[in-house]
Amino acid sequence: MPVLSRIKRPVKKEMAEFEAYFSKTMRSEIPLLNIILNYILRRKGKQMRPLLVFLTARLNGVIAESTFVAATFIELLHTASLVHDDVVDDAHERRGALSINALWNSKIAVLVGDYMLSKGMLISVEKNRFDMLEIVSEAVKSMSEGELLQLQKARKLNITEEDYFKIISRKTAALVSACTACGARSVTDDPETIRLMKDFGENIGIAFQIRDDLLDYEGTGLTGKTVGNDIKEKKITLPLIYALEQSASSKKRHILGVVKNRKKTKTDINKVISFVSDNGGMEYAELKMNQYRDKALAILDSYPDSDVKDSLKEFVYYTTSRKK
Amino acid sequence: MPVLSRIKRPVKKEMAEFEAYFSKTMRSEIPLLNIILNYILRRKGKQMRPLLVFLTARLNGVIAESTFVAATFIELLHTASLVHDDVVDDAHERRGALSINALWNSKIAVLVGDYMLSKGMLISVEKNRFDMLEIVSEAVKSMSEGELLQLQKARKLNITEEDYFKIISRKTAALVSACTACGARSVTDDPETIRLMKDFGENIGIAFQIRDDLLDYEGTGLTGKTVGNDIKEKKITLPLIYALEQSASSKKRHILGVVKNRKKTKTDINKVISFVSDNGGMEYAELKMNQYRDKALAILDSYPDSDVKDSLKEFVYYTTSRKK
Repeated sequence: MPVLSRIKRPVKKEMAEFEAYFSKTMRSEIPLLNIILNYILRRKGKQMRPLLVFLTARLNGVIAESTFVAATFIELLHTASLVHDDVVDDAHERRGALSINALWNSKIAVLVGDYMLSKGMLISVEKNRFDMLEIVSEAVKSMSEGELLQLQKARKLNITEEDYFKIISRKTAALVSACTACGARSVTDDPETIRLMKDFGENIGIAFQIRDDLLDYEGTGLTGKTVGNDIKEKKITLPLIYALEQSASSKKRHILGVVKNRKKTKTDINKVISFVSDNGGMEYAELKMNQYRDKALAILDSYPDSDVKDSLKEFVYYTTSRKK
Repeated sequence: MPVLSRIKRPVKKEMAEFEAYFSKTMRSEIPLLNIILNYILRRKGKQMRPLLVFLTARLNGVIAESTFVAATFIELLHTASLVHDDVVDDAHERRGALSINALWNSKIAVLVGDYMLSKGMLISVEKNRFDMLEIVSEAVKSMSEGELLQLQKARKLNITEEDYFKIISRKTAALVSACTACGARSVTDDPETIRLMKDFGENIGIAFQIRDDLLDYEGTGLTGKTVGNDIKEKKITLPLIYALEQSASSKKRHILGVVKNRKKTKTDINKVISFVSDNGGMEYAELKMNQYRDKALAILDSYPDSDVKDSLKEFVYYTTSRKK
């Protein structure tokens, strides 16, 4: 059985119900909007976020309607942000199919994203789940702040390891911890449990992002990302930050000069990758990633054994060992 | 005294306090974000929406902190939508200054818009004003639906008068009625009053949009919009819809053919404007606009005389007589 199907097993029924719930929520009276929403629904991704919401809820209690509300809100928000990202990046493909901006146009894509976001807000309001609105709006704020901090640092190339963790905690881990916090919140009022689950998600999110950044150096042939893409875009991530910290300032200046250059050749990019490799940048990032993974696993270990605990363990391992 | 200063008089103090409240709310820990937010604050518009929130609140009671929350949320949302619009339209200017996407870039502009939207949500959550979140999210949903319906109709040029009112009620009047509903809600729990004020805003919003569409035919030399811009973009508004309804089907087909043509000359556009004028399209739209204006005024007339009632009356007249 493929790993994701195995992870899904304890909430298989709910994930199937979620599909129907989600597509019902999306529906609108505007015909053009429905055509586009159907197109999006048919090309859905792995739905890792709703899965995490359901698994965390099951771990802490009995899945309720509010679990569906949380999963729907978060998936709507995530989908809206992908649609908007494609506009900004002028990307013509998403998940192997044409993007909304390519198939219709940018204006339509932005409006569809706004519609999904407002629908997510409305469903939380309708169901009186203001606690979830708070968790999710906090995540949206963090995500935009994290991305902006990253862009700011990329302009000056003066990013430290501390900055890096500040950025990824906001731009990636905030939404993952919103999944686990909302999942827990949907089945319990206990603030201690919710806080613990928020931490659990935060650790998964950070480990996930380090893995993502490592894939840019290691590659596997499977990854959608081309190796060296971050370097090309002047995104300085943990492997390079560590390698630079290990080097004499003349070498450091030289490498930063290569990264800064707008017209980098394949040779330039390979030079940076070798530099990172020679200075133990990948090993260090892997070590850090495993620390966060282990923190997430330690939180799980405070729970009694169960099928859903096993699934979440596998979820964590999957996050940090995935090849794409 | 200029008309807007006169309208503002009864809430002058609150509008001044609002400036400080609004800029405090926008602030972030991310330096780049603060630089951009300050840039936006320095180039603020006429702030018609917060003004309407404060005036409606004063009309129905005593302005409270929740009035500030409502005004802030709505202005954040409105500003975010302008920043996003400029990205979609690839506009390089806004209010006589460079747009955010022109001065920084599109990615940054989208993120700044998202940040403002999430801040608006968060302030409502923090202040426990979920009633306002509901009103405003409903408006956001309507706005995207209205715009999408308009784009859908523009593709086929098959828009009826009924469609037109459906579109403008959503894309424009929804946010104006959110202003008046939230303004009332901030000072009273009475559902009848809130409903009445929502209607009041709906009528203002529709009249406002008809005026906007009329300016595209009449022009004044003052308007930011060039005359004929809507025709150029295949946007069929009330004056043209009415004129088409008055005409024989051969003439109708001919004019629609001109509108459809992507490469319209100045002569083509003038031909459409003359056609609308000859068939009483402008008079009809003006008549309709005045009907909505009068409905708004009739609602005000149910209130006892006061300075704030006079201001709101002037606000309504300003909306339907403005030259830009």
